[in-house]
Amino acid sequence: MNIKLPGLIDPHVHLRDPGATHKEDWHSGTCAALAGGFTVVMDMPNNTPPITDAQTLGAKQRAASEQAVCDYGIHFGAGADNAAIAASLASQCSGLKLYLDQTFGPLRLDSLQSLVSHFSTFPKDVPILCHAEGRTIAAALFVAQLYDHPVHICHVSRKDEIELIRAAKEKGVRVTCEVTPHHLYLTLDEREKIGAGKCEVRPMIATRADVEALRANLDIIDCFATDHAPHTLFEKESASPPPGYPGLETALALYLELVREGMITLDDVIARCHENPRKIFNVPVQDETWVEVDVDAEWIARGANMFTRAKWTPFEGRTLRGRVTRVMLRGETVFENNCVLAKPGSGKNIRPTL
Amino acid sequence: MNIKLPGLIDPHVHLRDPGATHKEDWHSGTCAALAGGFTVVMDMPNNTPPITDAQTLGAKQRAASEQAVCDYGIHFGAGADNAAIAASLASQCSGLKLYLDQTFGPLRLDSLQSLVSHFSTFPKDVPILCHAEGRTIAAALFVAQLYDHPVHICHVSRKDEIELIRAAKEKGVRVTCEVTPHHLYLTLDEREKIGAGKCEVRPMIATRADVEALRANLDIIDCFATDHAPHTLFEKESASPPPGYPGLETALALYLELVREGMITLDDVIARCHENPRKIFNVPVQDETWVEVDVDAEWIARGANMFTRAKWTPFEGRTLRGRVTRVMLRGETVFENNCVLAKPGSGKNIRPTL
Repeated sequence: MNIKLPGLIDPHVHLRDPGATHKEDWHSGTCAALAGGFTVVMDMPNNTPPITDAQTLGAKQRAASEQAVCDYGIHFGAGADNAAIAASLASQCSGLKLYLDQTFGPLRLDSLQSLVSHFSTFPKDVPILCHAEGRTIAAALFVAQLYDHPVHICHVSRKDEIELIRAAKEKGVRVTCEVTPHHLYLTLDEREKIGAGKCEVRPMIATRADVEALRANLDIIDCFATDHAPHTLFEKESASPPPGYPGLETALALYLELVREGMITLDDVIARCHENPRKIFNVPVQDETWVEVDVDAEWIARGANMFTRAKWTPFEGRTLRGRVTRVMLRGETVFENNCVLAKPGSGKNIRPTL
Repeated sequence: MNIKLPGLIDPHVHLRDPGATHKEDWHSGTCAALAGGFTVVMDMPNNTPPITDAQTLGAKQRAASEQAVCDYGIHFGAGADNAAIAASLASQCSGLKLYLDQTFGPLRLDSLQSLVSHFSTFPKDVPILCHAEGRTIAAALFVAQLYDHPVHICHVSRKDEIELIRAAKEKGVRVTCEVTPHHLYLTLDEREKIGAGKCEVRPMIATRADVEALRANLDIIDCFATDHAPHTLFEKESASPPPGYPGLETALALYLELVREGMITLDDVIARCHENPRKIFNVPVQDETWVEVDVDAEWIARGANMFTRAKWTPFEGRTLRGRVTRVMLRGETVFENNCVLAKPGSGKNIRPTL
């Protein structure tokens, strides 16, 4: 059966461009997005160099404008000393990303002072996203609340974390959150099957109890987000494997699996992949834009067949159901018969650039 | 000039008994308290073994009841798995102490889950005290607020910390805090003079800017607390010096110095050393109890002359002004002419014991 969905929005991807285009670039990454049914992706700032000033933001804006085949937002990177710069560039960005715990790249913030400086300075109409784990989530929520700033917690992965966010929401705290498909499906038990190096991801995949807690709290999860973080197979199988999985091309089928399992409805998927991210990140409406999905189509996940330059997937060999057959973007067919038809550079920034 | 003060209350001491009575015991520690003008001290749970169940609490209650010469409360230790036990013993304790950052002893809690378990379980009429630094303070305040539990932040020492607490208080968050005399006076510049090993303390003494920020925020500091944490000179001068300073016998003179500097009034000292800790920790009134202080008496701090078994002080050689000349406890003279007159065991627990 074919169904029509609105263009999916992924608030959390790493397209690695500029700086590591051997892993992914704006063209390969947005091709993967279209193949996965996404018409808007929001790109994270932990590039090399990180996106922390006007110059690095400008370089990313140019790379994206020349190559992207779907629409995109650019999240700005919070550094220890760039709160004023971040605030001055906020209108050009989809969000401000704070890395408060261990991650890939040099953007980690440790001090209370840096947390306060960004929450007290960044414009309130642009969200702040936090990579925060465990009690760091509580710290971020407190400072966000103190400065009355909306906060979005990225890739929630643990039982105690999702339960804290539920309790916070019940108390009226202004917090939104996202969960990745891998944290909804994979546990550490799969480590051997996937391979120790490939398995590395931050936050690390967790226990069955954590997966079950996320699934038990789907009603308060605002967004699904892939955290698409491509690295090459060579890198993932090296002695120091960098953390991250590609995810754009397997995500929708996994979300639909939750519907088949009876965990959520199709409307819930649309809320988490379109309506909520649109509201949270103030994404402009894309006219005449939709995704056709054959929800019964079975296929086997094979990294080698994917658009992502990573060419591997933690779901390798898994039989998935639900495949994107066609994507319309602003009245044009941009994806059909597993081919990207859009021209490089046809994707638009969801924010004005200067 | 002689003045009369109410019996001072110190909510934060480490009397090391049971477990390390070569550093201090209930007799030597409470003698130091009386010499410093304190008629109530509250003892921390990071003993060897830590005070985390009925048995260890009972052992401390017995040691104290046999030896203490001033009144005392016993703070219970939060462990990773003892939230229900802590709650069941709350009525016998002056507070529940959570060690959320690096400290002396094995009681450190790292997980969000342990933080939540204690704040959600411990009776709301007994305060929870947190050793928390930097953004961990924000985490503790968030969880406290979520579970509507009063929280007391121990030994605030940094500019960003005291400013966070000010902002939180201004927003109506139910938080109290304490500052130590050493964080109000000493900076890392004194390290060489004091000696690197002796200098070790948690939180570490900081910068001039931090000291100035604490002094600029004296109006929102609820309590002064010594964090009296005796170790022997031998230990402090060893290759792995344990953190902590003795403080009971130098504290009042240093608080009075703030009055002479015009930073606060004598009433402010009384609020921070008597009225506020009495309210926060629900300390019963001590009838006919007061302290006589010769506020002009000059003396030189000499560890060797002190009651504490530590026999050293970070203020060694400093000229101090203000000396306790007499302490009355429940109508009895318990300290006079630099002699403790009270009998061991005359001090009372401020909570009922079973």
